[in-house]
Parts: sequence; structure tokens; C-alpha cells
Amino acid sequence: MQLGKIVGTVVASRKDEKLEGLRLQLVKYVDTDGKPTGSFVVAADSVGAGVGEVVLVACGSSARMTQATDNKPVDAVIMAIVDVLEIDGDMKYVK
Amino acid sequence: MQLGKIVGTVVASRKDEKLEGLRLQLVKYVDTDGKPTGSFVVAADSVGAGVGEVVLVACGSSARMTQATDNKPVDAVIMAIVDVLEIDGDMKYVK
Amino acid sequence: MQLGKIVGTVVASRKDEKLEGLRLQLVKYVDTDGKPTGSFVVAADSVGAGVGEVVLVACGSSARMTQATDNKPVDAVIMAIVDVLEIDGDMKYVK
Amino acid sequence: MQLGKIVGTVVASRKDEKLEGLRLQLVKYVDTDGKPTGSFVVAADSVGAGVGEVVLVACGSSARMTQATDNKPVDAVIMAIVDVLEIDGDMKYVK
Amino acid sequence: MQLGKIVGTVVASRKDEKLEGLRLQLVKYVDTDGKPTGSFVVAADSVGAGVGEVVLVACGSSARMTQATDNKPVDAVIMAIVDVLEIDGDMKYVK
Repeated sequence: MQLGKIVGTVVASRKDEKLEGLRLQLVKYVDTDGKPTGSFVVAADSVGAGVGEVVLVACGSSARMTQATDNKPVDAVIMAIVDVLEIDGDMKYVK
Repeated sequence: MQLGKIVGTVVASRKDEKLEGLRLQLVKYVDTDGKPTGSFVVAADSVGAGVGEVVLVACGSSARMTQATDNKPVDAVIMAIVDVLEIDGDMKYVK
Repeated sequence: MQLGKIVGTVVASRKDEKLEGLRLQLVKYVDTDGKPTGSFVVAADSVGAGVGEVVLVACGSSARMTQATDNKPVDAVIMAIVDVLEIDGDMKYVK
Repeated sequence: MQLGKIVGTVVASRKDEKLEGLRLQLVKYVDTDGKPTGSFVVAADSVGAGVGEVVLVACGSSARMTQATDNKPVDAVIMAIVDVLEIDGDMKYVK
Repeated sequence: MQLGKIVGTVVASRKDEKLEGLRLQLVKYVDTDGKPTGSFVVAADSVGAGVGEVVLVACGSSARMTQATDNKPVDAVIMAIVDVLEIDGDMKYVK
């Protein structure tokens, strides 16, 4: 998984019918210091995460392993909201 | 998923038989400001999107989760046409 | 899918038994102007494509969705020979 | 698989229910000299590895092939702890 | 698939039980001139390849399509030993 921060939302009315009701969030990837890496992904939300939250994103077929995304044409899912990121004994991030 | 803009079409008469009738679009990836990132993908179209439209592209096995692409040898699909892209409260893109 | 040009062939006598009879082509990826991007892939051929032809390559599990590659340990397949590539109304490539 | 070194932990209370009880480790990728490459991954732990250990990480759908990760929305798993890394007859790393 | 050269071995005693008996080789990726690209992968061996040999590596779910790797948590497999690499009529590599 990668670390990311939700910065926005994508709205699409014309889409594959299986995507109906699925929230698509724009997630900027961040490094272990919380700084944006410069790349981003549009991910389906399976945990009710909102703008500003630091999250984990799973990509590929694993993105379809949540109840919200099962069998759907999405290749990225937010599957966890990060509470604490601890590196070398340092609390790098606390929600 | 990644954001992209459809810029063209690929025509192929000699191809895997399962691809018959499937439209293949050339999509240039764009960043959150709508600027081309420099890379592109040829994606199957599952939503009737046309040249000039900003779309979402799903890659990998998830590209086969639409009715149009089920079980077919394609690794990228256009599964949504973007209406609105909102970042940090800004309407970055409105169709 | 990515665009590529077949430039050569890989011969391997010692290999997974499922690969018997499968042709492995060396494909250099090209951009939308037909210029090599600098990277390449060795892909299984499912359409009888030959050296010099511009083709589409599908990667990942989708590479196993052709009759020639079903269930085989290959992660890239040539699944179409490009006839026409049209971008912004320009015929960028015609076979 | 890629080589990595476990440097920390990610704690998430709000997450997909299938992730309950799964330990998420922060792994910095290293090269064959053990030097960090600059990129990292958050991986599920299937072997009881701890901070400081050099491990192998499998990504994509293969990350779901362990008992700990079966069917879960994770795209990276620690599936081995490295004892010895031998290159060109040199013991590059011994645990 | 990518071209690579086997340069070493990874030994791991603590690992997912399905990996028991599977040989893990360190493969440096090479370009079409046989020069190292700078990146590498740890791949399961399904063909009895040894150090110094030029091989093909399949990644992702396709890495599980050999008898040796079926259903196992590995994302890269050596599935062929290269005998000949011919590009533009040149024998770039002969074993």
C-alpha cells in the first residue's frame, strides 16, 4: 500500500453502472514525512474517509477486495485511515 | 485510476477475436491541473467517450470488470467521464 | 495497452512447458510519434505479427486472455496489429 | 519480489473489516548493497517480521496468497525474512 | 517479460510455508545489449536456471502460472532461459 492524503473529489455521471454510489477521491501520494511525492491516484473510498485525511491506498486487483468495490472496474481503493505512523521509534504522524 | 484526456483513436483489423467491436482510444494522462504528464495509454472504451473528453482510466485486471471488456485481453479501460474535479475546495475542472 | 514496434525475437529451448510453441517477440515501446521511448518488453505473440510491425501490447493478467496465452506464465501479449493511429485529426501512423 | 528493510509501523483503527488483526509494516526498499532506494511500501506482515529486519516483499495479487492475507485488500506482503544474500560469490548480507 | 541475468541467490529460512523448496534467485535486469539497467528483482526459479544465465522473468499474477509457483506468494518467476536474442537481423546474444 501507499500513503496518501485526500485532497479532493471526482464527480462522474456517465460511468460504468457498477460504479453507481461509489465515492471517488483524489489522493496525493505522500512520503514518510508526509510530503507530497508529486504523483496522485483517483481511488474508490471504502472507509468513509474525507478530505485532509491521511490514508492507505491499495492498488490493482486488491482494490476489488472490499465490500464497496467487489467486482467493480476500479484499480485503487482507500482501505484504511492512518492513525499513527511510527518510524525508528519516532511518531512521524499522529492523527 | 488515473485522469486522462482522449486525443485519438487506434484502428486495428488484425487482432484477438475478442476485441471485435471494442473501441480503442488513445488517452494522454493529465495531472490535477489538466496538463499532460507526457505519458499515455491505449484504453478500451466502456462508456462511449469521445475525443477531447476528460476521463478516468482503470488499469490491470480491473480493466476487465466492465461489460464491454469482460474476459478480454485489454489492460486499460475508460470507465467514467469526468464531470467535476474539485481540489481543496477549488473547481479545478468542470465539463 | 502500449504502442510498440517489433524489432526481434527471443529463442528459449529451456522453459516452462506451457510456453512450447509460443512465439516470443521483442517489442520496443514507441510514443505517439512512433519514436522509441527507450524501454522494451518481450511479449508473446497471439496475432501472427512480424518484425517491423507496430502493435499493441497488453500486460499483466490481461496478457493471458488470448487463446494462445491462456493460463500461461506470460505477462505481456501482442493482441493487435495497428493499422491506423489518429491523433487530433492527424493520421499519425498508417500501416 | 523486492528487498526491503522494515523501519516502522502503521496503525489504523478505521479500516476495511478484513484487515482486523493484520500487522502493517513500513518497508523501505533497499538495493543489493542494502542501501535505501528512496521508495517504500506499507506491507502486511505474514511471517512475524520486526523493525530492522531485511525482508522480501511480494506485490499485487500475489500479496494475497498467504494465510494472513487471503482475500484481503492488501497489495503488498512480507513473505520472507532474508537470512543470506549472495551475489557473485560474495555474502552481501548475512542476518 | 523482461530480460535479466542471474547474479545471486536469496536464502530465507523464515518464510511463508508455501515457499518451502522454492529457489529464489537475484536477477539483474538487462537491456537489449545485455547491459544492466540498474534495477533488479528476486524471482522464483521454475526452470533450473543458474548464476550467470540470461533469462526471462514474468511478473505479477502470471508469475504463479508455473507448476513450481502455483498459488504461491511470489510476484516474479524465471520461466525461460534465453538461447538466442535476435534484433534487426543481428544475433545480439547467443548462449
